[in-house]
Amino acid sequence: MQQCFKLAIEYDGTAYHGWQRQKALPTIQGTIEAALKIMTEQSATVIGSGRTDAGVHAWRQVAHFAVDTALTADSFRNGLNSLLPEDIVITDCEHASDSFHARYDVISKIYEYVIVNRRVPVAISRKYAWHVKTKLDLESMREALACLKGRHDFSAFEGAGSARSTSVRTVMNAHLAQRDGGDYLLFSIEADGFLRFMVRNIVGTLVDVGKRKTSPDGFESILRSGDRKRAGATAPAHGLFLKQVNY
Amino acid sequence: MQQCFKLAIEYDGTAYHGWQRQKALPTIQGTIEAALKIMTEQSATVIGSGRTDAGVHAWRQVAHFAVDTALTADSFRNGLNSLLPEDIVITDCEHASDSFHARYDVISKIYEYVIVNRRVPVAISRKYAWHVKTKLDLESMREALACLKGRHDFSAFEGAGSARSTSVRTVMNAHLAQRDGGDYLLFSIEADGFLRFMVRNIVGTLVDVGKRKTSPDGFESILRSGDRKRAGATAPAHGLFLKQVNY
Repeated sequence: MQQCFKLAIEYDGTAYHGWQRQKALPTIQGTIEAALKIMTEQSATVIGSGRTDAGVHAWRQVAHFAVDTALTADSFRNGLNSLLPEDIVITDCEHASDSFHARYDVISKIYEYVIVNRRVPVAISRKYAWHVKTKLDLESMREALACLKGRHDFSAFEGAGSARSTSVRTVMNAHLAQRDGGDYLLFSIEADGFLRFMVRNIVGTLVDVGKRKTSPDGFESILRSGDRKRAGATAPAHGLFLKQVNY
Repeated sequence: MQQCFKLAIEYDGTAYHGWQRQKALPTIQGTIEAALKIMTEQSATVIGSGRTDAGVHAWRQVAHFAVDTALTADSFRNGLNSLLPEDIVITDCEHASDSFHARYDVISKIYEYVIVNRRVPVAISRKYAWHVKTKLDLESMREALACLKGRHDFSAFEGAGSARSTSVRTVMNAHLAQRDGGDYLLFSIEADGFLRFMVRNIVGTLVDVGKRKTSPDGFESILRSGDRKRAGATAPAHGLFLKQVNY
């Protein structure tokens, strides 16, 4: 009997060339599909809520797949976890209706970006944060990011070579927190969708504001310009986490 | 001129056989001393606030050393960081008085232990937490750990083969927090000193309480008994962090 399942997936993206299946390279999607094939002897496509780039992590990516099976959702969770490498974990598996689609049904997604802002390097969790040496002006960064909220054309923060019908997205929330009042900064952004490299380009440009290379007004004018060449460098992948997908 | 310096050190202990120098094995102390020898051409001993075991991490270990040098504290911090591997970082270096001693002058130390309590494994930060599958009863664990506070003989939680004059220590604080109300548990303990394996043996026994293999009263009676054989298993090293040393 054809059945549809919804997965929640945690992964450490360090060793992978992103979510999307590629022929000769290890990817999250490809690795899960290979495990699923061992379990079901069927070639099912695992459709994610969206791609994550090479090196990006996920606390909770969501995906679905349909297979002809008598296995339960718990069997899939346990079976896949025993087959998957330790940097990919199925945290939840449940039955989904035939009409559920992990990408089309997304209402919003939340991404988090971790920066360690101090002069000296990072020893612990260095795979999970961007080390920025220059002391950042958090107040200016917060002033700048306020303009992100709402419905905007985010072309200025879009990576090259993206295939999409529109670059207009709605940002519901964006904020910058200082963890334990210390060196760890957490940028969080919720939107109805994200363009390629959008979070990392926003973070790169926000860090320019923090370094006082760009003013908060300048940040807003970059957003309004729609001109990628005016935005800052793309922040590295390893500080970025897909935190949550809302349906 | 002979000068004394105080170091604050962050390290990821995964690749090391603990703090203390050993002939043929990589250790934190040995690695820092080797870097110091390259900088100063002197064989100085780096005296830590205490040992950490193989695989244990430190957010802020403190140590001191004395060398004949004209170099500044900043030069030592920068020079050592450029020589050290990326899993050991000197976060601070400052001049210390000749009378400062990183071990004898300790007033208290704080250790933290991270547990991820959920059925499925951990993908992100799995090197930095102990995965406990069985759902833990946090209320019972909190009830049990209340007896730790104060001055007690901690023999029941001491590892074998320790060289020390007394097993009496004073615990100033001990608590168990649930991070973000989720799967991540953080046990924190402050004491004037710690016996070998003391934190890991306490955590192992507390987890038995959380699994209802031991009652909160049973936990207290294990502490009072001074009998190591009655305590739980030693929790794994990789969940343990030396958080802070107070002088």
